[in-house]
Amino acid sequence: MARPTPLSGFPEFLPADRFAEQHVLDHLRRTFELHGFASVETRAVETMDQLLRKGEIDKEVYVLRRLQAAETEGDAGLGLHFDLTVPFARYVLENAGKLEFPFRRYQIQKVWRGERPQEGRFREFAQADIDVVAKDELPFHFDVEIATVMAEALSGLPVPPLRIQVNNRKLLEGFYRGLGVEDTAAVMRVMDKLDKLDEAAIRELLAKEGLDPDQASKCLALAAIRTRDSSFADQVRALGVSHPLLDDGITELAQLVDALAELRLDGVSVTADLRIARGLDYYTGTVFETELEGFEHLGSICSGGRYEKLADDGRNVYPGVGISLGVTRLLVPLVSRGHLTTSRAVPSAVLVALVDEESRPTSNAIAQRLRARGIPTEVAAAPQKFGKQIRYAERRGIPYVWFPATEEAADQVKDIRSGDQADADADTWNPPADDLRPAIITPADSPAHTRGATS
Amino acid sequence: MARPTPLSGFPEFLPADRFAEQHVLDHLRRTFELHGFASVETRAVETMDQLLRKGEIDKEVYVLRRLQAAETEGDAGLGLHFDLTVPFARYVLENAGKLEFPFRRYQIQKVWRGERPQEGRFREFAQADIDVVAKDELPFHFDVEIATVMAEALSGLPVPPLRIQVNNRKLLEGFYRGLGVEDTAAVMRVMDKLDKLDEAAIRELLAKEGLDPDQASKCLALAAIRTRDSSFADQVRALGVSHPLLDDGITELAQLVDALAELRLDGVSVTADLRIARGLDYYTGTVFETELEGFEHLGSICSGGRYEKLADDGRNVYPGVGISLGVTRLLVPLVSRGHLTTSRAVPSAVLVALVDEESRPTSNAIAQRLRARGIPTEVAAAPQKFGKQIRYAERRGIPYVWFPATEEAADQVKDIRSGDQADADADTWNPPADDLRPAIITPADSPAHTRGATS
Repeated sequence: MARPTPLSGFPEFLPADRFAEQHVLDHLRRTFELHGFASVETRAVETMDQLLRKGEIDKEVYVLRRLQAAETEGDAGLGLHFDLTVPFARYVLENAGKLEFPFRRYQIQKVWRGERPQEGRFREFAQADIDVVAKDELPFHFDVEIATVMAEALSGLPVPPLRIQVNNRKLLEGFYRGLGVEDTAAVMRVMDKLDKLDEAAIRELLAKEGLDPDQASKCLALAAIRTRDSSFADQVRALGVSHPLLDDGITELAQLVDALAELRLDGVSVTADLRIARGLDYYTGTVFETELEGFEHLGSICSGGRYEKLADDGRNVYPGVGISLGVTRLLVPLVSRGHLTTSRAVPSAVLVALVDEESRPTSNAIAQRLRARGIPTEVAAAPQKFGKQIRYAERRGIPYVWFPATEEAADQVKDIRSGDQADADADTWNPPADDLRPAIITPADSPAHTRGATS
Repeated sequence: MARPTPLSGFPEFLPADRFAEQHVLDHLRRTFELHGFASVETRAVETMDQLLRKGEIDKEVYVLRRLQAAETEGDAGLGLHFDLTVPFARYVLENAGKLEFPFRRYQIQKVWRGERPQEGRFREFAQADIDVVAKDELPFHFDVEIATVMAEALSGLPVPPLRIQVNNRKLLEGFYRGLGVEDTAAVMRVMDKLDKLDEAAIRELLAKEGLDPDQASKCLALAAIRTRDSSFADQVRALGVSHPLLDDGITELAQLVDALAELRLDGVSVTADLRIARGLDYYTGTVFETELEGFEHLGSICSGGRYEKLADDGRNVYPGVGISLGVTRLLVPLVSRGHLTTSRAVPSAVLVALVDEESRPTSNAIAQRLRARGIPTEVAAAPQKFGKQIRYAERRGIPYVWFPATEEAADQVKDIRSGDQADADADTWNPPADDLRPAIITPADSPAHTRGATS
């Protein structure tokens, strides 16, 4: 067989980089569980009618067909999920009678999008989602909780500084209504294009929606407001627009941004940014986006918000609030530019050397004593000269080589980085805690080391 | 939307059962990493030409098509992987220049098979594989290592006793050649049907392959041998057949079964079982199967063996030895019969009660102090009467409710199972270690409690 080549859009990691991904996933899981979020894992497939309920995204679905299906059988009626929200909403309805509400869940899984193959578009990627869903009513303090938990999770990651941007759809909707706009959704979709179009183009589109130049100016002025605390409220009110829904939105957003600012998390900043709308999604209140410093071209790597109707089974409505971290989207650019990896390609902290093939049981027994105390250990593959066995460890990044006792000497362990070698007992010796697991490496010249500078 | 119903063949767990699955996956990962196995995660898809290289299984592949593909575009040329061996072999070839050999990897992922929907056939399931792959040559001690690591991993699982059955293809091949059989593969395929056919039917099939009654008797006598140690060797030799390959096979199998017997693992027994052939797979030496006591109808839940040619790129050959645990196949029957679950539906060990909505920040601060010391904690959703808040905890299986200090009393924590309540400080109080995480529950009347009985 010829050597296979990578498939565009389906990233895979080498072992040392995969440890970095595992480190990130473990940290996320630990944070989510400390806050009482339960793990849910849903099947990779949904029925096509579930997947196509969200009209905008249907072009990106991978449909399944059994290879040996009869000609008449056609597709399996199933497609791969393209996010974790659709499967979660379905899981909630399917199991509503067996879940306790409000229900907090986290879900870390791959999702798939049937994009045309092209550079930088992922066709398979991992997401880490947290959501709280309730029956009929979900108080606003859960919006604060969701944002807090994800901010705390992001803060512990070995990545460049992150900027969480929050806004509130009620604020936008109320502002537009207070302005006298009729089709507020159309205006929101126009304003969502501020990233791509200049002011003149936006004004032109707003005029098409029936806004006069003064109304358009106020929409643009609103979108320009960004503050680190609830002082945005005064700036909004200074625009002279009023509406009860606008007041609601201001109150909620002020509460959220103040609560987040109080956390004073390392490596994460929070801004009330009134430009954020998340135009295509069905959010009804809070909305979130997140930029990675130095990687703004990636777009938002962590987004979400509140849905008044995450799910609905005809008897009950299930409102939800959630946020989704694009794990692959965050990590692949860092790993591929050398901004993130780990110190070794194997979990082993120790390589037990092999004197000769006959003494393999002796080396195995030493390894087993170390493992019994939680020290990842492997035994040399072959009884080569010790110099070669040390190089074997070196190539894998294993920091310690253990030499079994001989007639002349006790067991000895060598730190192959420093060359230090000393007598040791496999029942008591411990490596420094930092050497127990592959260490995260974020090169000094990478943006990861400017963390905290913007907090 | 009507309430969705489960999809046959795509099992999903409720949260309390999912914790049991996570417990199992964590234990597997920990064991594999202690032995120096690195994590690899491959994409879910392979190109169709990779997937169809193993002829026998092609009927079970799910093929992908982009929903919005042009009429002329057809399938995406991709299918979902049906095991973790094909993707690993491809990964090894693709990254051969960047990996250090011998390369130990574990891989825990979902796989998919496009079976017709029917009860008990999984169409999506998780596997946990370990393999060692080398360049050109892989010494036999790795067969012993692979078996040892998986046996150790299985031994720590909260499941009924497991019986590992080992054999060696060289032993079978050498025996048949020594008997004078020409088409040894055909005979092996016939003998592999011993589970389904009676002796008379097997004799008839062997006769069709040209074996006389005496040769057939010897094949049947060989297949009847099973021992807990290397004493099988004498029984084989007593059949009076000799061949160099038979000797090799006997030596390897004796070494393997003796090494495994020495481990004396709880809940896992090991047998040299000369009936095991794994007929359809391309194994060339050691072969493994594993039965779950009381669930023999499931077939082998953990299987594998040695491939002299796991991968081959024209320049180098990559031999491998590996074993694959069917995690879903093992857990779903136990969970669905109530033989395995956990003590709660949320990670939270503590629910911090809420006096009133205004004091939510006080309750949040207590929760944060507990979390800072690794205690999963949530805050009550609403300031109901304390009796209702306690029932809220009870329904989720949360063992402790924390009452914030009042003017009359200090902070107090209540074990809602015993009713014991005492003053406590959120900076120092700890639950018993067993309460920190959801506890595994294997009901006393389940086979899980007869563990060790067969060792």
